[in-house]
Amino acid sequence: MEWRQDTVRLAPKPRGFHLVTDQILERGPRLEDFQTGLLHVFIRHTSASLTINENAAPAVRGDMERHFNEMVPENQPYYQHTVEGPDDMPAHIKASLLDTSLSVPLQDGQPAFGTWQGIYLNEHRDNGGARSVVVTAYGETA
Amino acid sequence: MEWRQDTVRLAPKPRGFHLVTDQILERGPRLEDFQTGLLHVFIRHTSASLTINENAAPAVRGDMERHFNEMVPENQPYYQHTVEGPDDMPAHIKASLLDTSLSVPLQDGQPAFGTWQGIYLNEHRDNGGARSVVVTAYGETA
Amino acid sequence: MEWRQDTVRLAPKPRGFHLVTDQILERGPRLEDFQTGLLHVFIRHTSASLTINENAAPAVRGDMERHFNEMVPENQPYYQHTVEGPDDMPAHIKASLLDTSLSVPLQDGQPAFGTWQGIYLNEHRDNGGARSVVVTAYGETA
Repeated sequence: MEWRQDTVRLAPKPRGFHLVTDQILERGPRLEDFQTGLLHVFIRHTSASLTINENAAPAVRGDMERHFNEMVPENQPYYQHTVEGPDDMPAHIKASLLDTSLSVPLQDGQPAFGTWQGIYLNEHRDNGGARSVVVTAYGETA
Repeated sequence: MEWRQDTVRLAPKPRGFHLVTDQILERGPRLEDFQTGLLHVFIRHTSASLTINENAAPAVRGDMERHFNEMVPENQPYYQHTVEGPDDMPAHIKASLLDTSLSVPLQDGQPAFGTWQGIYLNEHRDNGGARSVVVTAYGETA
Repeated sequence: MEWRQDTVRLAPKPRGFHLVTDQILERGPRLEDFQTGLLHVFIRHTSASLTINENAAPAVRGDMERHFNEMVPENQPYYQHTVEGPDDMPAHIKASLLDTSLSVPLQDGQPAFGTWQGIYLNEHRDNGGARSVVVTAYGETA
């Protein structure tokens, strides 16, 4: 049984949904010798989030941003938490609708993603700055 | 410390929310001898998803489908990812609103579900085909 | 490798989003000697849920409740599961939009929360009663 844990700092990104699978896998713990285990990714913020979705067509990521802006509009009359700007409260709501953590099985040294799956960092603020994720791999090693 | 991992193929289902607890538990790894641990279920797709919800009244599953179709309608004017049909982009959004993976505590050889909890496979495509889930159980065995 | 698991009963709360980090950490398993691991929290209900969000401004929790009531209104004409009252079917939908389980990395004996992160119990029923969560900590101990 082996545990590995690293913190990965992701450079500031514009508001929207971004594919970050490669950055996470290259800069997180080494996975090659996990025969059976799990990969866990945790974002240490409440106005950005993670999700797993389509890793190919960029239009999917644009449509995600456009639809979440419809489902969670800025400037709703019932928002009371408005001091940090119109994008702040929607960012908190989107973060809870999406995910703070992801976990993916490890099989034969690799995450068992389906063909079309990738990890998204979802930046919900207009100027969110760098984001920090904790990447933990654990399981049986060869 | 013990790890067990199996891939379970779920036969094609119509669009909607389906109770699959029994299929997952019968066809996934043996759980009886885990004293303390976790059961992890991961779906290897981006247009179908998992969730835990009410395991009795079928109307709950119908209402889930009807409400998600209201929250994430087809043919929105801002969708750009339209080549795979009107049900495709909503399927991706629904998959991120719901879950790609679930985890449930194992206690005395069984998942610690509440009385009314069951695992749903949520098929968001009109013709999604078979779906593959990776089921991982890990923990202390007797 | 160490496993610890406790069930924590949370007293009845009014409908809305409630910060419960301290209750969970004080009444769940002891964490101080986990060097590297994970903390897992699972709610055994389908009409209440968990999420991680802002731990300071109470207005965030009020805005969450108000926005989820807009996104998932009561008395929709397409709801068929109505026997348990107008708040019941929306509660099931909100529970699936939010989370049944959370997991947070353990580092040097503490959950690796970001500065502003806390655990919410989201009570979606008007009179939900007490809620039970299973708290599991596992990892390498010093």
